[in-house]
Amino acid sequence: MNQHPHFSVDDGDLALLTDLYQLTMLQAYWKEGMDERATFSLYFRKLPPTRRFMLACGQQYAAELATRLRFTDAHLASLAETGTFDDAFLDWLGNFRFSGDIWTLPEGTPVFENEPFMEVDAPIAEAQLLESLVMNLVQLETVLASKAVRIVSAARGRPVVDFGLRRMHGIDAAVRGVRAYRTAGLAGTSNVLGGLRHDLPLRGTMAHSYILAHDDEREAFRAFARHYPDTTLLVDTHDTLAGVDKVIELMAEEPSLRVAAIRLDSGDLGELAHRSRERLDAAGHADVKIIASSGLDEHEIAALLDDDAPIDAFGVGTEMGVAADAPVIDLSYKLVEYAGKPRVKHSTGKINLPGRKQLYRHHDDAGRMTGDVIARRDDVIEGAEPLLVPAVKEGQLDTATMALADGARERVERALDAMPETLKQIEPGKADYPVELSPALDRLRSRT
Amino acid sequence: MNQHPHFSVDDGDLALLTDLYQLTMLQAYWKEGMDERATFSLYFRKLPPTRRFMLACGQQYAAELATRLRFTDAHLASLAETGTFDDAFLDWLGNFRFSGDIWTLPEGTPVFENEPFMEVDAPIAEAQLLESLVMNLVQLETVLASKAVRIVSAARGRPVVDFGLRRMHGIDAAVRGVRAYRTAGLAGTSNVLGGLRHDLPLRGTMAHSYILAHDDEREAFRAFARHYPDTTLLVDTHDTLAGVDKVIELMAEEPSLRVAAIRLDSGDLGELAHRSRERLDAAGHADVKIIASSGLDEHEIAALLDDDAPIDAFGVGTEMGVAADAPVIDLSYKLVEYAGKPRVKHSTGKINLPGRKQLYRHHDDAGRMTGDVIARRDDVIEGAEPLLVPAVKEGQLDTATMALADGARERVERALDAMPETLKQIEPGKADYPVELSPALDRLRSRT
Repeated sequence: MNQHPHFSVDDGDLALLTDLYQLTMLQAYWKEGMDERATFSLYFRKLPPTRRFMLACGQQYAAELATRLRFTDAHLASLAETGTFDDAFLDWLGNFRFSGDIWTLPEGTPVFENEPFMEVDAPIAEAQLLESLVMNLVQLETVLASKAVRIVSAARGRPVVDFGLRRMHGIDAAVRGVRAYRTAGLAGTSNVLGGLRHDLPLRGTMAHSYILAHDDEREAFRAFARHYPDTTLLVDTHDTLAGVDKVIELMAEEPSLRVAAIRLDSGDLGELAHRSRERLDAAGHADVKIIASSGLDEHEIAALLDDDAPIDAFGVGTEMGVAADAPVIDLSYKLVEYAGKPRVKHSTGKINLPGRKQLYRHHDDAGRMTGDVIARRDDVIEGAEPLLVPAVKEGQLDTATMALADGARERVERALDAMPETLKQIEPGKADYPVELSPALDRLRSRT
Repeated sequence: MNQHPHFSVDDGDLALLTDLYQLTMLQAYWKEGMDERATFSLYFRKLPPTRRFMLACGQQYAAELATRLRFTDAHLASLAETGTFDDAFLDWLGNFRFSGDIWTLPEGTPVFENEPFMEVDAPIAEAQLLESLVMNLVQLETVLASKAVRIVSAARGRPVVDFGLRRMHGIDAAVRGVRAYRTAGLAGTSNVLGGLRHDLPLRGTMAHSYILAHDDEREAFRAFARHYPDTTLLVDTHDTLAGVDKVIELMAEEPSLRVAAIRLDSGDLGELAHRSRERLDAAGHADVKIIASSGLDEHEIAALLDDDAPIDAFGVGTEMGVAADAPVIDLSYKLVEYAGKPRVKHSTGKINLPGRKQLYRHHDDAGRMTGDVIARRDDVIEGAEPLLVPAVKEGQLDTATMALADGARERVERALDAMPETLKQIEPGKADYPVELSPALDRLRSRT
């Protein structure tokens, strides 16, 4: 190999995690003396057909990172080698500091079509540079949290544990994904590094390989249960119900062994859960819980619970790990104002909203979400809550605002309580949730 | 925030990027004195319906990483805090070194259902520990390269450039994804860090924001073309064909301005390409190329070229960035042998192949791939090429074998030349490519 392979990407190198055209545009703005203030707005135009809302996640982390982006001498040397950049521009890039303002939704806020997650007000080059990186960072957490919250809802209060590490798209997805899962309300993760870093409890059972490495399934159960009191035993390696019987026999033989749960990982999970529950109950083990895994998504979990499957917790990997039914959203990061003038691209059939904005949310007296208003930044919408908060002011992090990121999980819980039921349904289909433009924004849009 | 957010994951921390159950199983093996040699095999059971083959990618990098995995004192302290691990086991973990053998396919090898990408022979704890991390690493590159190679095929020799950074699942996916794209035959990437690290040429044009920040589209074109001779101008910000006319007028006004290409990023790309080509040709600019982007995948590219759309290069982002039609494969990493005895999980309707294996590929006299044989490791299949090579021997990297990773891109090119046409078709459907078991493996399978 022409270089020692390495996987890590240092935070200090993230200024280079950008599309080349950002840097060529920056140089063009610099050469043209275009340094007036611009506003870029981050939003998506269309919900995936299988989503009724998205959870905006990652934007406060991205704002924090914006204040730390620097080009090192090594970066500048690499850029010089491309032959595209003038030395004087590279000197300017070496002094790059984000000096603008960033408004964000608090992490974990539900968002709908055309609503801003984030607005960046800064000299145009600074705001332009953030585009590719911010979109990459925000999309990952938003896509994963928006899938996970559906799975949590489908489980109707039963714990859901992330088993997805092996299926996720690489290292950053696996580690930062756990942050998104925490926000979405998962109870735990099997992912050690992700769970430790993002403060989600670690959970684990056993794999088929452990059973297979022993010559006898019952001896494997015995050994594992002795090592780990209150453990979970995986019963489907050979024959699921025979596996359950072996667990019951083992508990009879060694009453001191405490088994907390069995795990079902293949076959007809509903049928097997019913029959396993019967056997456990008949043997006096009503306290031994049943955990199910095996390619589950929100629809399968809902179907199992509709059939009263006696499953106490779910382990979910593949489908949640890549948000398989909606792995991407069409995030846009668009210039909406430059040098005090609103700007907009005229695309047929697409809504583009000019100018600096604020997002307002109405609640009724019972605290229910009743509708949103996308407004001009300086609009005041009576009786509604402004959702975009200043995360960065003149290049300085607003620590009070940033602390809102810590409350993301609780914010999601409150939002789920406040949402109309139609938004929480997991079937494909549009939710009947009103999102309007303020009169002032509507006038500006007509004019631009 | 309870901690300064950080994104980087150091290579030195990747031993912790594992599922908790790997570590609890390791402790159980250690307590039980189970330290005999095991073989785990990495493969997938089912091709996604939209794939006729996968390109095995990332497995040589993963093998190299296995030789570097270490648990630091900080890792051990974190694990101690979970309360699950004994001090003596953590001491043992602190001395963990991979001492076994790893066989891998060279990167860029086409693979089919049930064929081993990688086999790990080692004391069971060492081989078990690799599971989650290896699967995560190999899946990312395999999924992305397997999508990208279809897009490259669909473009029939025209360059394809990666525009996907903003849509990919986080930082590692974006950076290491470029390695997969290079293997798959892409011509370039917009991703600066990814391209620099993985040696794929950087390409870039301009964004709509650059045009919108100028009060006049033509002046934006003029400024950019002056800064960047032989540049590409994005013509669809307001009205595509009017944009093309402005480029033509500009070249008439300032003959010294050299424009290499225009980019179409919205609308009916085929129709707009035909009409743009006519206008450019009529003005004497047959040398100005047309680049198309905008949510393209292999099917849309093939349809455009079937209609003789005069498009010279494609920029592809969203669909390729997450392999949207098949973002996940059901990779398995299964115990197939322990203590000299073949092992297999009996799953209804699934093939599980016991024992250590080799993969053989037959070619006819013209060099065409004619069929594969999954064999026992010590089988000799006359006239066929053994594909698994020893990447790590007794914990030491085999540098000659590892150098095969450098040839991944050329390996893919040769494989595409050698493949039956049916395998290269992009429509959904099974390819008629024979994969058989060797008689010895078939006998072992019946017996186990």
